[in-house]
Amino acid sequence: MDSLRRLEEIFAHFPGIGPRQAKRFVYYLLNKSPASIKEFTQLVEEVKRSTSECTKCHRFFFGTTKLTSCSICSDASRDQTCLMVVARDSDFESIEKSGAYRGLYFILGGTVPILDKEFEKRIRIKLLLERVSEKNSAIKEIILSLNATPDGENTAEIVKEALTKLKGDFRNSILGRGLSTGAELEYVDGDTIRSALSNRK
Amino acid sequence: MDSLRRLEEIFAHFPGIGPRQAKRFVYYLLNKSPASIKEFTQLVEEVKRSTSECTKCHRFFFGTTKLTSCSICSDASRDQTCLMVVARDSDFESIEKSGAYRGLYFILGGTVPILDKEFEKRIRIKLLLERVSEKNSAIKEIILSLNATPDGENTAEIVKEALTKLKGDFRNSILGRGLSTGAELEYVDGDTIRSALSNRK
Amino acid sequence: MDSLRRLEEIFAHFPGIGPRQAKRFVYYLLNKSPASIKEFTQLVEEVKRSTSECTKCHRFFFGTTKLTSCSICSDASRDQTCLMVVARDSDFESIEKSGAYRGLYFILGGTVPILDKEFEKRIRIKLLLERVSEKNSAIKEIILSLNATPDGENTAEIVKEALTKLKGDFRNSILGRGLSTGAELEYVDGDTIRSALSNRK
Amino acid sequence: MDSLRRLEEIFAHFPGIGPRQAKRFVYYLLNKSPASIKEFTQLVEEVKRSTSECTKCHRFFFGTTKLTSCSICSDASRDQTCLMVVARDSDFESIEKSGAYRGLYFILGGTVPILDKEFEKRIRIKLLLERVSEKNSAIKEIILSLNATPDGENTAEIVKEALTKLKGDFRNSILGRGLSTGAELEYVDGDTIRSALSNRK
Repeated sequence: MDSLRRLEEIFAHFPGIGPRQAKRFVYYLLNKSPASIKEFTQLVEEVKRSTSECTKCHRFFFGTTKLTSCSICSDASRDQTCLMVVARDSDFESIEKSGAYRGLYFILGGTVPILDKEFEKRIRIKLLLERVSEKNSAIKEIILSLNATPDGENTAEIVKEALTKLKGDFRNSILGRGLSTGAELEYVDGDTIRSALSNRK
Repeated sequence: MDSLRRLEEIFAHFPGIGPRQAKRFVYYLLNKSPASIKEFTQLVEEVKRSTSECTKCHRFFFGTTKLTSCSICSDASRDQTCLMVVARDSDFESIEKSGAYRGLYFILGGTVPILDKEFEKRIRIKLLLERVSEKNSAIKEIILSLNATPDGENTAEIVKEALTKLKGDFRNSILGRGLSTGAELEYVDGDTIRSALSNRK
Repeated sequence: MDSLRRLEEIFAHFPGIGPRQAKRFVYYLLNKSPASIKEFTQLVEEVKRSTSECTKCHRFFFGTTKLTSCSICSDASRDQTCLMVVARDSDFESIEKSGAYRGLYFILGGTVPILDKEFEKRIRIKLLLERVSEKNSAIKEIILSLNATPDGENTAEIVKEALTKLKGDFRNSILGRGLSTGAELEYVDGDTIRSALSNRK
Repeated sequence: MDSLRRLEEIFAHFPGIGPRQAKRFVYYLLNKSPASIKEFTQLVEEVKRSTSECTKCHRFFFGTTKLTSCSICSDASRDQTCLMVVARDSDFESIEKSGAYRGLYFILGGTVPILDKEFEKRIRIKLLLERVSEKNSAIKEIILSLNATPDGENTAEIVKEALTKLKGDFRNSILGRGLSTGAELEYVDGDTIRSALSNRK
């Protein structure tokens, strides 16, 4: 396969991109000046090079010097007793942006599809158990923040089961179900109604 | 305007129907046999004639004999201490179908758009206050079950305010917010995250 | 089945309407005044009663007196040498609205899906052949105006074949293919490009 | 701005990509191995480096040796009397894939939005006029193959006007309008019906 096709193929694996748009990406780049191309490839390499995976929460973070833990994990003013488990960096960003949470995070690195038995390859479950079992850990609560989707619920189930086997002095919680902003009762399923009713205020 | 245009106009006011589809409805009916047309118009009239608005909850109900209250309002086995306020019959149906609620209902008949001052024309607020103030009322809790939309929240606010002015021995509640089934954290807004976090279990 | 369910079922057969919207139609009608319901059912019956199928073009037309042919078929100023064959009344309306055509029409009453052998039940092919074979017919050209879809092309094929068996002194034509308004070359198929190229001006 | 934000910004300018997806692209790359990143950036540079803009048709082409004209422009078996003018490489690909055309091409490099007076900055109009005026040119017909959109029609108008000022021995043509594959008469506009009718066969 020639370079052109191979590059198209790589773009076609970008999230949400199909073969047709991959081809358009290649043409888009071909129309750029050599200087723009240089800037682009250098940025990709620089970002990769200067980004580290935090050894505590496993999210990617960017810094001028080599640090082992990210700005949140090393921020003593964050609530050290709460650890929120999320599937991906994008979930972390969404929650951090809401300003609703002031504790620490742990990025699982993915979710486990239903019926997938090899969940240890999908998510950082071992690293999570190690993180929680650290000697001087102040963690009192682990909040499972996973999507309200079949994959998210399956993952929450697996993580919860693994955590309850640990004999730690912490409680597990899971994000509350109910009406999301914009939800209309006419179109909402029975589970959501049941949760919204039991969470009524 | 001739009858054809007038009928198109009527269909164009059906929920979710625009002028083009209204026109297609008319052609659809023209292609039906006279017997089918007869069945259709007779059913419309029969359904209208044999449906009553329940004097207690104001939902439409269908029955062979003339009753003043619907099967739910006259069912002594339902929890008489709980009154759920919903906007429309379709919301009532959705909640009843979930099987999550065993109390009584009250249909407001609509919602109040933000900035609309004449809310008394939009919703059965007076009738609700009368219903709640009935002498021998057993109501201990009024659950406001409205959409998590701007109109729904505005309506809940108005109803809540009116109810708190009543000096009744009941509490007001509102459906819990959180992650609806299918919600993905990456796309969910800050309010939903905040609610899901404070409702965590 | 009770009347309510039966009415929902009838609405669910309206073009483009599913069970959920059918239910909403019923509630919509229940909320109307008895007078509005009366107007609605009377209009449906009146429109059906005062609409006739034109004996020449077979489209539905509306008139105060009982006529056997519609305003177009009885308009001597229309080009009597051209007969356009369309599938449905809505296609007729679209073409008439364009103002591009001044001849006569014939409504087939439907299209024939590919592999459907019983096409005589689907379209008024016999009536079309009779119409074209009328003794004092002035028709010199028959224009097949069918959708550029598999069903439309299949129907055009069937009608064309039937017409060529007739030994009339007329020519058959079919609407030209090419770029429709809004078409983008990047997304257009090979057939359309081929036609657009051979029809270039 | 840091490198991460700058890279997100660059991705957000890729065709069809918004800020949210740009962010996902960055995370996607961060999760790749250093070797994959290396392959990606090297491919981008290699493709850019080994791609040339054809000096005759101005499309990008890929080859092992440095050539000044692309495989089509240097193919003597192509019809040298026909020049098709298209807006972009992707339009060229779509037409070439249809197999309907065997002549030469010229890539304008874009389209001119309506009311945009500085069209010389948008499209290679000067280079087109030079190409057509070449001394030993065999061109007999110039086919304007532009989208049937407002921008495409405006561009065709501008190019046509510029070409008619040239005193060459060639004719201008434009792709035929009519029903594109999949077009339904009910939804098609009057212009398309008019063209389809005048192009009938």
